[in-house]
Amino acid sequence: MLSNKKKYIVNGNSGIKAQQIQFADQKQEFNKRPTKIGRRSLSRSISQSSTDSYSSAASYTDSSDDETSPRDKQQKNSKGNSDFCVKNIKQAEFGRREIEIAEQEMPALMALRKRAQGEKPLAGAKIVGCTHITAQTAVLMETLGALGAQCRWAACNIYSTLNEVAAALAENGFPVFAWKGESEDDFWWCIDRCVNVEGWQPNMILDDGGDLTHWIYKKYPNMFKKIKGIVEESVTGVHRLYQLSKAGKLCVPAMNVNDSVTKQKFDNLYCCRESILDGLKRTTDMMFGGKQVVVCGYGEVGKGCCAALKAMGSIVYVTEIDPICALQACMDGFRLVKLNEVIRQVDIVITCTGNKNVVTREHLDRMKNSCIVCNMGHSNTEIDVASLRTPELTWERVRSQVDHVIWPDGKRIVLLAEGRLLNLSCSTVPTFVLSITATTQALALIELYNAPEGRYKQDVYLLPKKMDEYVASLHLPTFDAHLTELTDEQAKYLGLNKNGPFKPNYYRY
Amino acid sequence: MLSNKKKYIVNGNSGIKAQQIQFADQKQEFNKRPTKIGRRSLSRSISQSSTDSYSSAASYTDSSDDETSPRDKQQKNSKGNSDFCVKNIKQAEFGRREIEIAEQEMPALMALRKRAQGEKPLAGAKIVGCTHITAQTAVLMETLGALGAQCRWAACNIYSTLNEVAAALAENGFPVFAWKGESEDDFWWCIDRCVNVEGWQPNMILDDGGDLTHWIYKKYPNMFKKIKGIVEESVTGVHRLYQLSKAGKLCVPAMNVNDSVTKQKFDNLYCCRESILDGLKRTTDMMFGGKQVVVCGYGEVGKGCCAALKAMGSIVYVTEIDPICALQACMDGFRLVKLNEVIRQVDIVITCTGNKNVVTREHLDRMKNSCIVCNMGHSNTEIDVASLRTPELTWERVRSQVDHVIWPDGKRIVLLAEGRLLNLSCSTVPTFVLSITATTQALALIELYNAPEGRYKQDVYLLPKKMDEYVASLHLPTFDAHLTELTDEQAKYLGLNKNGPFKPNYYRY
Amino acid sequence: MLSNKKKYIVNGNSGIKAQQIQFADQKQEFNKRPTKIGRRSLSRSISQSSTDSYSSAASYTDSSDDETSPRDKQQKNSKGNSDFCVKNIKQAEFGRREIEIAEQEMPALMALRKRAQGEKPLAGAKIVGCTHITAQTAVLMETLGALGAQCRWAACNIYSTLNEVAAALAENGFPVFAWKGESEDDFWWCIDRCVNVEGWQPNMILDDGGDLTHWIYKKYPNMFKKIKGIVEESVTGVHRLYQLSKAGKLCVPAMNVNDSVTKQKFDNLYCCRESILDGLKRTTDMMFGGKQVVVCGYGEVGKGCCAALKAMGSIVYVTEIDPICALQACMDGFRLVKLNEVIRQVDIVITCTGNKNVVTREHLDRMKNSCIVCNMGHSNTEIDVASLRTPELTWERVRSQVDHVIWPDGKRIVLLAEGRLLNLSCSTVPTFVLSITATTQALALIELYNAPEGRYKQDVYLLPKKMDEYVASLHLPTFDAHLTELTDEQAKYLGLNKNGPFKPNYYRY
Amino acid sequence: MLSNKKKYIVNGNSGIKAQQIQFADQKQEFNKRPTKIGRRSLSRSISQSSTDSYSSAASYTDSSDDETSPRDKQQKNSKGNSDFCVKNIKQAEFGRREIEIAEQEMPALMALRKRAQGEKPLAGAKIVGCTHITAQTAVLMETLGALGAQCRWAACNIYSTLNEVAAALAENGFPVFAWKGESEDDFWWCIDRCVNVEGWQPNMILDDGGDLTHWIYKKYPNMFKKIKGIVEESVTGVHRLYQLSKAGKLCVPAMNVNDSVTKQKFDNLYCCRESILDGLKRTTDMMFGGKQVVVCGYGEVGKGCCAALKAMGSIVYVTEIDPICALQACMDGFRLVKLNEVIRQVDIVITCTGNKNVVTREHLDRMKNSCIVCNMGHSNTEIDVASLRTPELTWERVRSQVDHVIWPDGKRIVLLAEGRLLNLSCSTVPTFVLSITATTQALALIELYNAPEGRYKQDVYLLPKKMDEYVASLHLPTFDAHLTELTDEQAKYLGLNKNGPFKPNYYRY
Repeated sequence: MLSNKKKYIVNGNSGIKAQQIQFADQKQEFNKRPTKIGRRSLSRSISQSSTDSYSSAASYTDSSDDETSPRDKQQKNSKGNSDFCVKNIKQAEFGRREIEIAEQEMPALMALRKRAQGEKPLAGAKIVGCTHITAQTAVLMETLGALGAQCRWAACNIYSTLNEVAAALAENGFPVFAWKGESEDDFWWCIDRCVNVEGWQPNMILDDGGDLTHWIYKKYPNMFKKIKGIVEESVTGVHRLYQLSKAGKLCVPAMNVNDSVTKQKFDNLYCCRESILDGLKRTTDMMFGGKQVVVCGYGEVGKGCCAALKAMGSIVYVTEIDPICALQACMDGFRLVKLNEVIRQVDIVITCTGNKNVVTREHLDRMKNSCIVCNMGHSNTEIDVASLRTPELTWERVRSQVDHVIWPDGKRIVLLAEGRLLNLSCSTVPTFVLSITATTQALALIELYNAPEGRYKQDVYLLPKKMDEYVASLHLPTFDAHLTELTDEQAKYLGLNKNGPFKPNYYRY
Repeated sequence: MLSNKKKYIVNGNSGIKAQQIQFADQKQEFNKRPTKIGRRSLSRSISQSSTDSYSSAASYTDSSDDETSPRDKQQKNSKGNSDFCVKNIKQAEFGRREIEIAEQEMPALMALRKRAQGEKPLAGAKIVGCTHITAQTAVLMETLGALGAQCRWAACNIYSTLNEVAAALAENGFPVFAWKGESEDDFWWCIDRCVNVEGWQPNMILDDGGDLTHWIYKKYPNMFKKIKGIVEESVTGVHRLYQLSKAGKLCVPAMNVNDSVTKQKFDNLYCCRESILDGLKRTTDMMFGGKQVVVCGYGEVGKGCCAALKAMGSIVYVTEIDPICALQACMDGFRLVKLNEVIRQVDIVITCTGNKNVVTREHLDRMKNSCIVCNMGHSNTEIDVASLRTPELTWERVRSQVDHVIWPDGKRIVLLAEGRLLNLSCSTVPTFVLSITATTQALALIELYNAPEGRYKQDVYLLPKKMDEYVASLHLPTFDAHLTELTDEQAKYLGLNKNGPFKPNYYRY
Repeated sequence: MLSNKKKYIVNGNSGIKAQQIQFADQKQEFNKRPTKIGRRSLSRSISQSSTDSYSSAASYTDSSDDETSPRDKQQKNSKGNSDFCVKNIKQAEFGRREIEIAEQEMPALMALRKRAQGEKPLAGAKIVGCTHITAQTAVLMETLGALGAQCRWAACNIYSTLNEVAAALAENGFPVFAWKGESEDDFWWCIDRCVNVEGWQPNMILDDGGDLTHWIYKKYPNMFKKIKGIVEESVTGVHRLYQLSKAGKLCVPAMNVNDSVTKQKFDNLYCCRESILDGLKRTTDMMFGGKQVVVCGYGEVGKGCCAALKAMGSIVYVTEIDPICALQACMDGFRLVKLNEVIRQVDIVITCTGNKNVVTREHLDRMKNSCIVCNMGHSNTEIDVASLRTPELTWERVRSQVDHVIWPDGKRIVLLAEGRLLNLSCSTVPTFVLSITATTQALALIELYNAPEGRYKQDVYLLPKKMDEYVASLHLPTFDAHLTELTDEQAKYLGLNKNGPFKPNYYRY
Repeated sequence: MLSNKKKYIVNGNSGIKAQQIQFADQKQEFNKRPTKIGRRSLSRSISQSSTDSYSSAASYTDSSDDETSPRDKQQKNSKGNSDFCVKNIKQAEFGRREIEIAEQEMPALMALRKRAQGEKPLAGAKIVGCTHITAQTAVLMETLGALGAQCRWAACNIYSTLNEVAAALAENGFPVFAWKGESEDDFWWCIDRCVNVEGWQPNMILDDGGDLTHWIYKKYPNMFKKIKGIVEESVTGVHRLYQLSKAGKLCVPAMNVNDSVTKQKFDNLYCCRESILDGLKRTTDMMFGGKQVVVCGYGEVGKGCCAALKAMGSIVYVTEIDPICALQACMDGFRLVKLNEVIRQVDIVITCTGNKNVVTREHLDRMKNSCIVCNMGHSNTEIDVASLRTPELTWERVRSQVDHVIWPDGKRIVLLAEGRLLNLSCSTVPTFVLSITATTQALALIELYNAPEGRYKQDVYLLPKKMDEYVASLHLPTFDAHLTELTDEQAKYLGLNKNGPFKPNYYRY
């Protein structure tokens, strides 16, 4: 699902800047191309977990599929078109239903379609995209189409494609090249098929992770002459763009949509406030009331987790390295402790730091029996899971995503998702959150495509605040929320344009 | 009290940038010197309100004072020193008690004193200050002294001086020139006595509102040659500095401490979360449970008010002009409405916008009987109180700070503090919040005084994030809060210095 | 104020049954008449505190009063009537304003008046009353009048009478005998003047504390032949009635309105949820965020205190003796501790137990500097204040209701209201809560007066659940709350009458 | 699982008395024995749902079972014992693991075992039981054994037996007669095998639903001569006992453990506070923030649902028929409305009333597109699901337990669990809640078995408050909660025994 967007999000020990984190560890990454396997370990685990997830988008028709590679099949859609490569075009109907359900929860994109019935802000745009292929992406893609764009699309992950949705898109005339379970070779072949086809010269890039951008840089650098801009939404991809920019090699404007206000709040605070409860319940059926919990890190993700658990009657402790976030935790009513102080008494340990080895083997040794350990933060480094792979400890898989690690004295630690992200592995991301992201992407494409010459140089930009506000405003009708408009007199008094932007850039929300 | 610091705070319709607001209305202010009377109308009302406030700092000994102007008195402290001008040096003992009580709640400054027992970071500093003269200021001033500085001090407001505290400072050897109820002429005389005295050349300025800075610019411009920097904490003063800078007339580095993270969070979110309840209770003795409330503006102040009232069982509606803040209100569980939609049904209307005429006469006409109207935002413009000064309406003062405005049909509106800031007029600011501000000021002075040549130019700077974090860290012991330290390995992984700063500048907290 | 109604309320260590508490200590009380002075120590402190309270009902005209005893004055109201005895009939106008303000917040009584415009359910009732004389009582009394009753009234407390209100009632034709500062002799003289007057034979008693009932028993036992019933609302009075009943001496039906559901919830949970914050703020101006608080007792009062402080960002610990209430505290997210475990670390100690010596000198010795200690529970026994009256400790009154108790080493404990009830001494009781009580009293009078022969015997009864529900329903319009009605089919399915009662007697709400 | 205990719970429109509800509809039930099929429709649906539940206790080994009826098999456990009848004794090991996991979360029963190592309070007890056969029941049964009792056990539901657990019990020597998917005939055969076996005369009955009791009444009435008492925990069974009692036919003491305080709070308030979120998430993956929700009924279940959703940022409306509960909703901050007022605008409708046809076809017709409708209350009558079975509406099963009902104009309503209980069908009951129930049962058995002659007559009793408190106290260690003990002086002051009971019977908690 698109939900693995989230995998790239850095929550930091309260939101350490993404680039910094990546920088330290992954500087080498851009030069030395990692294999699909090595580099995408997280993605894979996510995709695997989606097999046993409770998502409505489960691939219920997969089992009937044959084992022939899609690349070896000859398929046509009902209109005779064969410019696509998906698992099975016959699954289109199932996929269409998923897309229709998603449309109902993505009102902002649907509103964009409506407003664009007259003018087509993307008329002439030729967008090549590389993202997860899900029902929500399909709504985005068909919206771009409705706004006038032509699109060609590949998957940014070898496991996350929903075959039915891909089929539905192909049936609707979209050149889609993606299926679940691509090989490394398939992966690049699909991307290439999107970029390099006769009579097609893309002028916009929508990327998630930077692979598409990388491919064009490597294989078709001349293409950039006609490209008006890149929209990138992942931490990793954004990091690569900043590196290109620093190295003076970025040859088109790029927009970092990962750090837009609206997207960040939903990806982290609002989403995690719900998914921490959901993830814990689905895996352990535990009761929250009265439980003692320590949350490591009081950034947006930590704030969300703490608020939810406190509301459910848990007693929550917080650890922090940043004194400002620590003071916030105090004022919000949480005891600020070092992990060692409470590790013997807590029932649950949750990491949300973006840091590594926050929970060490020593901590794990001191936890009490039945203590639950999970990670809501960044990547899979926060809990030192590797330290548990020692002979004296027994691992017992008691349920999907749930392991009991058993000490020689019988003590059991309940480890969730093997230390990977709980919210991705054991919960789902609401379509509404994905809607925020997709709308942000669409608006960034429109902005870059229509910007007058000179507004954007060969650099990485944040989404203009006004667009950020527009994303938010498109989602207000969902809540039947009614915005107040400034009077002329008030706008003058405040020195503001009536249509925004309403805040200075440094405003903290 | 220092509390009127708060008067300058702009909460914005969710935090509109201060300068913008001031700019539109007050551009003329800097050139055309307003009289003390005209310009300081808000300050005055605050000071008057302090007469009937419940503050511990009430001037209980005032009544026995004679009417002679302090300028006409000859007073000496017990050590024979007469370099000061206060109401009555004999009140020193009372003032000392107030200072001692304040010290207990200002642990950060006390910690600074302790840490400075060896080195004196302000040794050689000659600080001229112009702030409210309260017990908390006294703790600041005596801390600066303990850190090695010499100080001379005047009041930034003609009404806010606590005479006993001024006396205690004078008794302790501080040249203080301030009393409650100064005339316009007294005001400038006091400032001048701080600046222009033989054998004294200040090299640091601590200002609150910009009057001291203005005076030196006007009268002793040459003094700036020896001045290392200005620390300014009010919105108004900061605005003036930015204008000077823009005009190329700022001739020393200046530090804007108003917008530091820690100070902002405490002045707005945390402080207002409590003072909205306090202010409403003290004035109306109302019950919050089940009441319908509309809060205009969902910035930090609005967020604080909404959270508190929701927790007390009120049903809260929110109005907003900014779609991002609006979406936050939705996700926090508040119905987002236009004021007109709920104005007939609500029991309380609270403004927190920084805007003008948010509550109009038309709104007031439509409110139901007994509706309470108050302002937690900026200045006294949010409610159109002037529109209620019409012959058909009767005003009845039912209690200090509480007016009933009565319509011809008998309907009564309960107007609090005549539309001025409820939290200043009818509540108190906890010493802890003032401690945050005073510590921020002290650290800014230390930073500017000790900065190596070239670190700061002739411009306006924000407090370095590391200092901001330090302010926070000095306040953690109050909560017995234990910060976690990064290991070397973790710091390297995150690309951070172990001592901070821990976040990029754009981090939103 | 009527607020001292609350003084009789027993919150229990989570609501120990009132009678039991009284029983153990006060068994002797009924036989051996205590003096007014000795017995009513709590009332007095309340009344004294009202001098420095922030109530709107402050006796602003008292100062002009002469010192002549009202018993020695000849006064007539404007209609020439002199059947009353108040401080100064000329204060009637001030009192009337207070009554009018109270009327606006007592919608239930006003609704009763309206509904009774046709039939007069108390026509023929001759009610003799003995309660606190406040604006709220006045609304009750005038409502009883509007329902057809004749009334004569005395005060149940020698200090709590608001003279202006008494004057307003006298001016309106009510025979009121009460003033602030009665002597013991005055007290009984006033009661006697209500009972024993030519041409007047009361047939209903409304009592608060049992003194009126006691007087009639002692002096005019024959009067009971014509009396239809007693309505009693205080814990003390109810206890006396149960003792009379047990002893077989109760010769008329009596209604215990103290234990009605609606009244209890408002007096305890809802009221204390707000007054704990109010009382602490008004006395100490403290900030709640991040403070560590221990609340002793998790009954209704404790639940209210804990919920409010948690919502304001305090970290709350709970002590309990009852395992069921203890488990509730756990499930609501509070650490359940013994007082000793946290006494060294907490910033605030709040007692809500109904027990004695919950906070001992030993605890007080171990508290940290500046710890605030206060009592929200029953009477003034919870904190062992007497143990602090020792020579080595210094008491310093820093503000009304606030004492610093200073240890030889300089440690200060902040003791509020000398250990008496914080909510009575340092806060106010919202009129809405008093409205619940007054309505309950009115309905109990109507019920007893109109009950068919035989429904009530010579025993003590709880308010019928249907009446309890009716009190609640009369207060719903304040919140614009719309009740759903059962359909005939639903009522049949549930086996309920469509008009209630809706719950079995043991239902716990 | 035991979770279907919950099916019998009556939440009432805020807790209508169970018996009343049953009475109206089921008066005929006791005389006219319904078939297993007809009477147990709810149970069946629960059991079916458990097939697709996410419970750890899923019968993962079932698929390999053969189709032979257990009654036709000859099985022996490893000790050669064959006095049992289960699906497959070889599954014992799997079942034992489930039991061991359950033991860890049932500390109270484990504590009872420990305390009974010396004395055996159930020595000599011969208990015949008829309950759901789950891991938690197994812990109960083995605890009874450890306390000295002999047990024989059958299932109270033809679908709810976990075969592996039954096997583990049989392997451990317990005569268990139960398997998943019994026929009506099997059901009674199993019960009979527990009761009627040579050399066995039961002296205690533990029943859940009353079938076992009924069978003995009908077949072996003489057995009651030796039976010391019946413990019954279901609403239905309790209702039958009250009817027997009323009819003068109850010939032994019976204990109604359904209405004990601790059990009720956990079954309703605490459990539903969590399961409403869990049930909605698992079925719909929806986001709670900003959603408008109407909760019908503000009893314990409604209170739990409202608190949870409010905490997650939903805007919650409440409907009520009882003015007292309505007033509580107001004071807790919820708008009290009639369903019609908000039906067009809400995103979710939740019923918790115990009533029938609370949501009618007319309401359903007026809901907006995508509105989610579910039931947390009693039985499956609250939503008029039958009214949706009309030709013009299309039903679409989109996921297990989730139907889209589609109107001719395309509007879809999302109906969960076909209107049956969401918390049973789509969520799980935490073991901790089941531990409360099982401990209550064990203590009731001990009490009845050991009560001195004459303490209990042939009537239905509530669990003594002291036992209720004991159940709570046994669960406190889970939370590391430390109870305070009364001093002798305090106990005397309060008139209480130091060991409880601590409250009068009418105390409302």
